Amino acid sequence: MGGVESVETRLRYSDENCSIKGTLEIVGEKWSLLVLREAFFGLRRFDDFHRALGCARNLLSERLAKLVDQGVLERVAYQEPGQRRRHEYHLTEKGLDLQPALVALKQWGDRWTADPDGPSVEVLHRGCGAAVNAVLACEHGHSTLAPHETEAVPGPGARVAAA
Amino acid sequence: MGGVESVETRLRYSDENCSIKGTLEIVGEKWSLLVLREAFFGLRRFDDFHRALGCARNLLSERLAKLVDQGVLERVAYQEPGQRRRHEYHLTEKGLDLQPALVALKQWGDRWTADPDGPSVEVLHRGCGAAVNAVLACEHGHSTLAPHETEAVPGPGARVAAA
Repeated sequence: MGGVESVETRLRYSDENCSIKGTLEIVGEKWSLLVLREAFFGLRRFDDFHRALGCARNLLSERLAKLVDQGVLERVAYQEPGQRRRHEYHLTEKGLDLQPALVALKQWGDRWTADPDGPSVEVLHRGCGAAVNAVLACEHGHSTLAPHETEAVPGPGARVAAA
Repeated sequence: MGGVESVETRLRYSDENCSIKGTLEIVGEKWSLLVLREAFFGLRRFDDFHRALGCARNLLSERLAKLVDQGVLERVAYQEPGQRRRHEYHLTEKGLDLQPALVALKQWGDRWTADPDGPSVEVLHRGCGAAVNAVLACEHGHSTLAPHETEAVPGPGARVAAA
């Protein structure tokens, strides 16, 4: 993705509007990503998140509130017979759009932090049952690109760095 | 990826050997991911990382040392004429393997934290010049899968949770 000539290009620009930094500011905290992992597993209720994650309740509340504020999860009311009204947390379109990032983080861990028994979770294609991976593909249909087959270039939002 | 029936399945297992958590423990800190972003842009030298990131030098040193300890970057000696020997930081195979995760985080930010002018960086396929995205594809060749087309199931390393 890089190259010697790209260092000078890189240093000509600021990272003030970097999209990676933008993403990390919204969902980059470890517990936020783990809450989202559980949401992709289908969890929706506070007590289920709490049981699955084993973190402090106030930390979980704070992370859920931030993810709702940011539009990644939405609160949806429900009521069990005889109980008070409660809320579930559902992934929005914005939240669902994080799946490639979560699968990519998972597959790196599967390969490099591997348990001797193998991964604890597999993601499968419902249509055919085959394992699903996050891969790099270009918009002309070339798939499973390696780093040396790609290059990063300044985009329309690139900002020249202050001298 | 989830579903009502999957909540009970999920809660039967612990997350002690979760690969997402494993990945986040190694590279999940914001500054570690930003250092890796710069390494993918082609940066290798301490002063270039420092100039690009604008973080404190001791924080940068600490993050680089951790990434080297974890085998994500490697230190390679170089010497300019008349200067003392210094080290560059090169991505290892383990580091290069993080590219799908970084591209996935970037494209989410491009879409959801977008600058009105567009992304600050574009990743292109060197072979044809088309934009590169992180997509979900199954090993039978079905590509650009959406969350509802996938399911997460316990893998061989799944650990049953303590009662």
